[in-house]
Amino acid sequence: MTVAGMLEGVEQGTYSLAIDAMGGDRAPDIVVEGMDIASERHPQARFLLVGDEVKLAALLKRYKRAAKSCTIKHAADAISGDMKPSVALRMRQSSMRLAIDAVAQGAASGVVSAGNTGALLTLAKIVLKTLPGIDRPAMAAIGPSARGDVVMLDLGANVSCDTRNLVEFAVMGDVFARTVLGLTAPTIGLLNVGSEEMKGDETLRRAADLLRASHIGPQFHGFVEGHDIAAGTTDVIVTDGFTGNIALKSIEGTAKLYTGFVRDAFRTSTFAKIGYLFASGAWNKLRQRVDPRRYNGGVFLGLDGVCVKSHGGTDDLGFAYAIGVAVDLVRYEYKNKLVEGLAKLRHVASTAEALEALQASGGSA
Amino acid sequence: MTVAGMLEGVEQGTYSLAIDAMGGDRAPDIVVEGMDIASERHPQARFLLVGDEVKLAALLKRYKRAAKSCTIKHAADAISGDMKPSVALRMRQSSMRLAIDAVAQGAASGVVSAGNTGALLTLAKIVLKTLPGIDRPAMAAIGPSARGDVVMLDLGANVSCDTRNLVEFAVMGDVFARTVLGLTAPTIGLLNVGSEEMKGDETLRRAADLLRASHIGPQFHGFVEGHDIAAGTTDVIVTDGFTGNIALKSIEGTAKLYTGFVRDAFRTSTFAKIGYLFASGAWNKLRQRVDPRRYNGGVFLGLDGVCVKSHGGTDDLGFAYAIGVAVDLVRYEYKNKLVEGLAKLRHVASTAEALEALQASGGSA
Repeated sequence: MTVAGMLEGVEQGTYSLAIDAMGGDRAPDIVVEGMDIASERHPQARFLLVGDEVKLAALLKRYKRAAKSCTIKHAADAISGDMKPSVALRMRQSSMRLAIDAVAQGAASGVVSAGNTGALLTLAKIVLKTLPGIDRPAMAAIGPSARGDVVMLDLGANVSCDTRNLVEFAVMGDVFARTVLGLTAPTIGLLNVGSEEMKGDETLRRAADLLRASHIGPQFHGFVEGHDIAAGTTDVIVTDGFTGNIALKSIEGTAKLYTGFVRDAFRTSTFAKIGYLFASGAWNKLRQRVDPRRYNGGVFLGLDGVCVKSHGGTDDLGFAYAIGVAVDLVRYEYKNKLVEGLAKLRHVASTAEALEALQASGGSA
Repeated sequence: MTVAGMLEGVEQGTYSLAIDAMGGDRAPDIVVEGMDIASERHPQARFLLVGDEVKLAALLKRYKRAAKSCTIKHAADAISGDMKPSVALRMRQSSMRLAIDAVAQGAASGVVSAGNTGALLTLAKIVLKTLPGIDRPAMAAIGPSARGDVVMLDLGANVSCDTRNLVEFAVMGDVFARTVLGLTAPTIGLLNVGSEEMKGDETLRRAADLLRASHIGPQFHGFVEGHDIAAGTTDVIVTDGFTGNIALKSIEGTAKLYTGFVRDAFRTSTFAKIGYLFASGAWNKLRQRVDPRRYNGGVFLGLDGVCVKSHGGTDDLGFAYAIGVAVDLVRYEYKNKLVEGLAKLRHVASTAEALEALQASGGSA
């Protein structure tokens, strides 16, 4: 079936996503298995499964639900995990490229890939392009906190950011938290080394001023610190890609260390082992609460199309969660809401600039 | 007894430390209690206890060991937790100031305070001054990892750092890990968003090049990522103060969140509570292993004198650990070793610069 043929059969209210079947450590197996789980969770979703036709057709024989919800699109090549973005860019028939192309051509509303992060970011930026009014896209993800889930961005798409980038990230994060976490007025914090207004450099202080004056000003909490991420002080944490990447990985590393410490503690003595047997129900609940698979799915925000990056090493359940994030973004019209938010921001920014120019020239506001 | 009188009585092999008795949330009580514990752990240490004479004399009646190991020096004022450094600087008779003055005058080799961090950094920098050859001091601390204790710096003394600062931090971290952790050749990592050589900005890549060429080149592991901190990939983690501050607080926040999750899990059911009773021995061991008090004591490195900052909210045991860090730094001659390390670094740096200048002018090395 052709892509056009697939779209013809689509009823009102369905969402189509292009899936890169060949990205990730155990592709295409976990991709198809994840899609199978997602098909049940999101019955209105239709998938364009892009990859090696022969392998995929064979796999789909074992996953009936997945087979019913998708159309295969053949891709002759696959981008490896260590391939440089510049090389990936020249490979026109890769599964990742064709999946992104499908979004650009309107055959799908979003793409999900567990492949090479650098290649995905580069291809998505060039093929999908950033939305008008956005300087640079950002990578966002959701994580657990003491007060519910928290959105953090940028997680590494931009190692250095200016004031404009940070303000735009805040708007992206606001719309993301409304769309995926279902919050009506998410609170927003700007990551800094202290919560006092005079802390940090000029870029941060100016971003805080602009956010206070913007349409999301009432939701802006001000500066937050590293410990506020896990405390859930705000629903959205905004930072540059260098700091965000290191904070996220520091948190993931610490979570792993503590999980290991707890596991070790249970092995120290016979008493501890007996204790484990009694407490195992509670442990399983705890493990579910912080299960990294539930938080799988980094999202490139600010592009003209939904683009979700799954961890390369995830399993079927993790991949299904990444698909779920893409489904939410498409279903609740993330892109349209972001365009609205940016329009409001531009209005405020131009007013702020006009005011500044007026004050600088000696006039009164 | 005068300070001079105190020093006269000091035998060979003793270490004198000035203690700011009035800094921290529960000063002077926990300071004196902490000093009492430290007196037993470090019998060769002598303390100059700086603060309100009347209050301290009354307290010392209850702590005989502490009383025997110290001399009181009266200070009329105390710097509050929210006082701006510029205001603290004008207060010449504060307990913090007089304690730092004692180090500058040679009456003590180091100072320990649980007071206002910004004030302590400012006063220590101005009164003690940085060691010759050091551009800026850094704040370092020790934390737990999967492979033993890890030293991280800078934790917030400098929100932006250049190549020279990062290289000097690496040398400070090397000597600190040798002195306090007792390692013979600590491994060193430079925090970045990826471990590949081309990652990060020019400042980081240039710092990595200089470190590879330096006397600590064989110990330099290259770039490390956020998760490497808890994994203990290297013994020392070097970063700028903005990133280091946020990484440290992100880690502390996550550790607290996970401890809370575990505590909650034990309360979910009667079975879990029974499990807790059986496993309580193991839990206590685990709690000791990650006890934040054991890691109390941020150190300002690069100053002409030892300066240790205790958490303001710590208890007696935590304060005793902070004193212990100061004792180690004085006892194992941190300052002299750092001066040696800096001399080696200058030699390499000047060679590297000469080489570069030569190559730039078209000559061959």
